[in-house]
Amino acid sequence: MDGEAQETHLLQGIPDNYGGVKVDLTEPMTVEDFVPKLSASLVAWRSQGKKGIWMKLADGLDNLIAPAKAEGFVCHHAEREYTMLTSWISELPNTLPANASRRIGVGAFVLNKNTREVLVVQEIDGHFKGTGVWKLPTGVINEGENIWEGALREVEEETGIKTKFVEVLAFRESHQAFLERKTDLFFLCELEPITFEIKIQDSEILAAKWMPIEEYVNQPWNQKKEMFRFMANICLKRSQEMEYMGFSTVRTMGRENYLYCNSDHANLLNATRGLASISTPTPR
Amino acid sequence: MDGEAQETHLLQGIPDNYGGVKVDLTEPMTVEDFVPKLSASLVAWRSQGKKGIWMKLADGLDNLIAPAKAEGFVCHHAEREYTMLTSWISELPNTLPANASRRIGVGAFVLNKNTREVLVVQEIDGHFKGTGVWKLPTGVINEGENIWEGALREVEEETGIKTKFVEVLAFRESHQAFLERKTDLFFLCELEPITFEIKIQDSEILAAKWMPIEEYVNQPWNQKKEMFRFMANICLKRSQEMEYMGFSTVRTMGRENYLYCNSDHANLLNATRGLASISTPTPR
Repeated sequence: MDGEAQETHLLQGIPDNYGGVKVDLTEPMTVEDFVPKLSASLVAWRSQGKKGIWMKLADGLDNLIAPAKAEGFVCHHAEREYTMLTSWISELPNTLPANASRRIGVGAFVLNKNTREVLVVQEIDGHFKGTGVWKLPTGVINEGENIWEGALREVEEETGIKTKFVEVLAFRESHQAFLERKTDLFFLCELEPITFEIKIQDSEILAAKWMPIEEYVNQPWNQKKEMFRFMANICLKRSQEMEYMGFSTVRTMGRENYLYCNSDHANLLNATRGLASISTPTPR
Repeated sequence: MDGEAQETHLLQGIPDNYGGVKVDLTEPMTVEDFVPKLSASLVAWRSQGKKGIWMKLADGLDNLIAPAKAEGFVCHHAEREYTMLTSWISELPNTLPANASRRIGVGAFVLNKNTREVLVVQEIDGHFKGTGVWKLPTGVINEGENIWEGALREVEEETGIKTKFVEVLAFRESHQAFLERKTDLFFLCELEPITFEIKIQDSEILAAKWMPIEEYVNQPWNQKKEMFRFMANICLKRSQEMEYMGFSTVRTMGRENYLYCNSDHANLLNATRGLASISTPTPR
């Protein structure tokens, strides 16, 4: 009886594999109800030798963020649906993993091998607005979306062209101010076109066309900045000799996870499993 | 005079390249002060034809999150230092990029080529606690840290071994519940050891040693789950023949950005620029 009564004054938490506790709050709660429960829970967790506390507050419980921070929590990360707070309550060194979240972008190199033309666009807004520069279709992958899927989606949304994923040719890592909306991991993907008739997305795309690969690469802007020059030249090399080899996907059994690895090796893995077709995955 | 008076009732915003506005609030504000300013600002922005509004609330301004959401904002993402809210106020289709944040992990394949032994650890806590499984050093990269840097840091922290970055051998993409603390992009990196004497990190690591590569690969756990088997076998192949080729880094001029691409190509790029040494980068 006493145990039960005490239980109602604590937040429900479940232990994790790291000597910590995970609390998942989804029901509205007043600050007056929350603060004493949180204080009592912290006392209990400390006495149990717990280390890291993860507290997930669903959208709508934003009134609890400031009181939790007043009790020592910090924001770990947030999404539209929730805010994740953490607190390290142990005397040991803090081993909670950093958020280290990266925004992931994709650029699509869609090559028509018969004509050696590449699919390029001009965007209505953005960095190259009004410059006349033709660029590869690019975009940001969605939550829960695979990189290769994001590349296919962006190309179809922007230009109407349907494609198959071929390889990740390279990726770029950069650290830029968030508000510039630059992604900090950018994957250059080769896609193979299945359809060729362009239908542009009116809201974002000013123009799209098939452009001879050399003409694309030789645009002054592509030659000026080293990172762009390197990526453009990888596309050129790929179009000329197919000697450049990137990473292909292997879908593993069970959960839908993908390994991206050396393409020769991926082909071997897929072939030996009788799953060669999965080396060019199609959307779910 | 009228213009100035009106100005004080609006939030300060600066235009972005996409027809939007960026608001960066850092000073404490009461809800009573904030709400009328936000309402008036939204009226002004709508009349100016603005589309996406980005509002960055510094840590400490958490009292403004709920009122902003009541005015139509949603949480885009958050870090320890701030919460980023967005609102799409145009009739046009919403083109604000999704957060699409990924947690990035690294696993380090540190091979002593002379003995064909690989550096392995057992962690105090975590998924393999008490199983006797020997695993590669792994970790989560920090905010603003490069992938290759994170791999070097984790190895040195966990085992005391100093290394040089060689290649990204493969990467894995998975979509798992956050609270499991699984990363959703995991980069398998080959590192070359510079020192060999192990000194373990007491707080996280139970044991560390150099283990013959075949013994590491043949652990039952490494053979059971397909994703682990594939990655272990890439390490084995790499150790046997050096025929497997991954992605190396090329540091580009100007800002400290890295391109990861086919290693032959990266060596060529670095060599032609007289920067071959940068193909094995060292920490900043």
